[in-house]
Amino acid sequence: MNSHAVYTILDLIGTFVFAISGAVAARQRRLDLFGIVVIAFMVACGGGIVRDVCIGAIPPAGLSNWRYLATALAASAVTILAYPQVRRLRQPVLFFDAIGLGLFAVSGAQKALTYGHNAELAILLGVVSAVGGGVMRDVVLSRVPAILEREIYASAALFGAAVQVGFSYAGWTDWWTPWFATLACMLVRLASLRYGWRLPVFQGRRAAETRDNS
Amino acid sequence: MNSHAVYTILDLIGTFVFAISGAVAARQRRLDLFGIVVIAFMVACGGGIVRDVCIGAIPPAGLSNWRYLATALAASAVTILAYPQVRRLRQPVLFFDAIGLGLFAVSGAQKALTYGHNAELAILLGVVSAVGGGVMRDVVLSRVPAILEREIYASAALFGAAVQVGFSYAGWTDWWTPWFATLACMLVRLASLRYGWRLPVFQGRRAAETRDNS
Amino acid sequence: MNSHAVYTILDLIGTFVFAISGAVAARQRRLDLFGIVVIAFMVACGGGIVRDVCIGAIPPAGLSNWRYLATALAASAVTILAYPQVRRLRQPVLFFDAIGLGLFAVSGAQKALTYGHNAELAILLGVVSAVGGGVMRDVVLSRVPAILEREIYASAALFGAAVQVGFSYAGWTDWWTPWFATLACMLVRLASLRYGWRLPVFQGRRAAETRDNS
Repeated sequence: MNSHAVYTILDLIGTFVFAISGAVAARQRRLDLFGIVVIAFMVACGGGIVRDVCIGAIPPAGLSNWRYLATALAASAVTILAYPQVRRLRQPVLFFDAIGLGLFAVSGAQKALTYGHNAELAILLGVVSAVGGGVMRDVVLSRVPAILEREIYASAALFGAAVQVGFSYAGWTDWWTPWFATLACMLVRLASLRYGWRLPVFQGRRAAETRDNS
Repeated sequence: MNSHAVYTILDLIGTFVFAISGAVAARQRRLDLFGIVVIAFMVACGGGIVRDVCIGAIPPAGLSNWRYLATALAASAVTILAYPQVRRLRQPVLFFDAIGLGLFAVSGAQKALTYGHNAELAILLGVVSAVGGGVMRDVVLSRVPAILEREIYASAALFGAAVQVGFSYAGWTDWWTPWFATLACMLVRLASLRYGWRLPVFQGRRAAETRDNS
Repeated sequence: MNSHAVYTILDLIGTFVFAISGAVAARQRRLDLFGIVVIAFMVACGGGIVRDVCIGAIPPAGLSNWRYLATALAASAVTILAYPQVRRLRQPVLFFDAIGLGLFAVSGAQKALTYGHNAELAILLGVVSAVGGGVMRDVVLSRVPAILEREIYASAALFGAAVQVGFSYAGWTDWWTPWFATLACMLVRLASLRYGWRLPVFQGRRAAETRDNS
């Protein structure tokens, strides 16, 4: 199996996992059938579409490659038909979501490099690929994006994308490098869940600040 | 009148109708003069700008063609000066909005095909052209996009775009095909309003889910 | 110092000021370290990224030029380390924000012209450069964008961008023209703050409208 096929398969697994998480959120908000499919597709492909527009990959693969849409439709169908089972999967979903996070961060960064862009753009757009869809879901459902308030999530994507870009700049393009970068991101994410790691929040003097905002 | 002129005129009628609906929503939220114009312009042109960016039509027509801005300004002026009359138009507005939906879905899908893209992209971006501006309006005004919770709206746009792409792939490019596709979208939308058609919502066991979300 | 260097320095000053305002808003919402940096970067670079995508400047400078990211990081660090001092700066922040507004409106419009686009696009994207990041901040933090409800802000950006485009079309490209346009925008903004200028809001009959919305 060549390297291109590997990236495609990884991408579709990540797409499926992210689409499931979108469909679950949409169903919980009681959106209709169309709303569930839209949110599932948005979570799975939204970040990649923004990445493609920014690197000049026109048209965006998420919109023109039928595999992504078909994967999002399949994930929506699974969520609707087997909702009680999917809902019981909280722990497995977090696990697969961590895999998807790593896959998207690494393949997103690699795609930006492949299009000839620099390391900064590759790392930033790796993160956008991985978390952009989730941010869109939260914005559309009118809630503050979870990644801005919660555990180490986008930071894990940043780490994975940086590892991949580092390998690429070091000239290490062995078959195992994307897998290693994906695993690095995934382990940081899972460890943060397991041990409750968080980034610092700066609380300040609450009363004083509240007065300030009024 | 050649076919290109027909598409331009259809597009401007759709722009006017959508801009009216944006200006009414902005005025109800008591935005100032500038806010009303911005929301009117966003509802009318936002979806088309996203479509143009995704198909590589740079610069987006909505930003560089003065006719769109002028139409949005005219719609804002009408809404401000004749608000009581416009507000009484609820039924007519829904009627014209259905026309706008069909026009934008069909002309958006056709533009993607004209730029050489495939059927999937054309249908998806036809829907984005038709409903994207409304979604932006709802996101900016901090409410869950109506199209995700309500009647058959985006689905009607999907139907119209698919009919247009179907004609195009079948090689039927007679003068009446875009009109037929527009009419198909419009009738689905109006019938859904008239007869209260809705897409299924999956309610599940409410209490259990509510506990889950907490 | 050549003209290109001038635009770069102006742009970085505007970036720093806008990033500070984003970091303050994020800290007040108790976002974590990553959230503060993301919002600071988004306010500072979001509008420019949208502008670059719309004029075909791929990749967007905000994502590929390390100076912007470094400036946003520096502004975040200042906000976190010296928060009490920054918070006391309300008046100075409004002053610097007015400078940033003028700088971004003028340099954004000029960049669109440099890429060969027309006056309308240049003015609209000058405004987007200046206010787009702030709108994204408000959308992500789930509040109605301040620019749609408040004082003369986006209108001042529109004025500055129009003055710059006017000079360019008149063939006046002396060294002082961008400074004059920036100053024009800044004075309109500061005067609106000083004298409480507002654009008209159309109140209508409140009770009737409220019934309508229900």
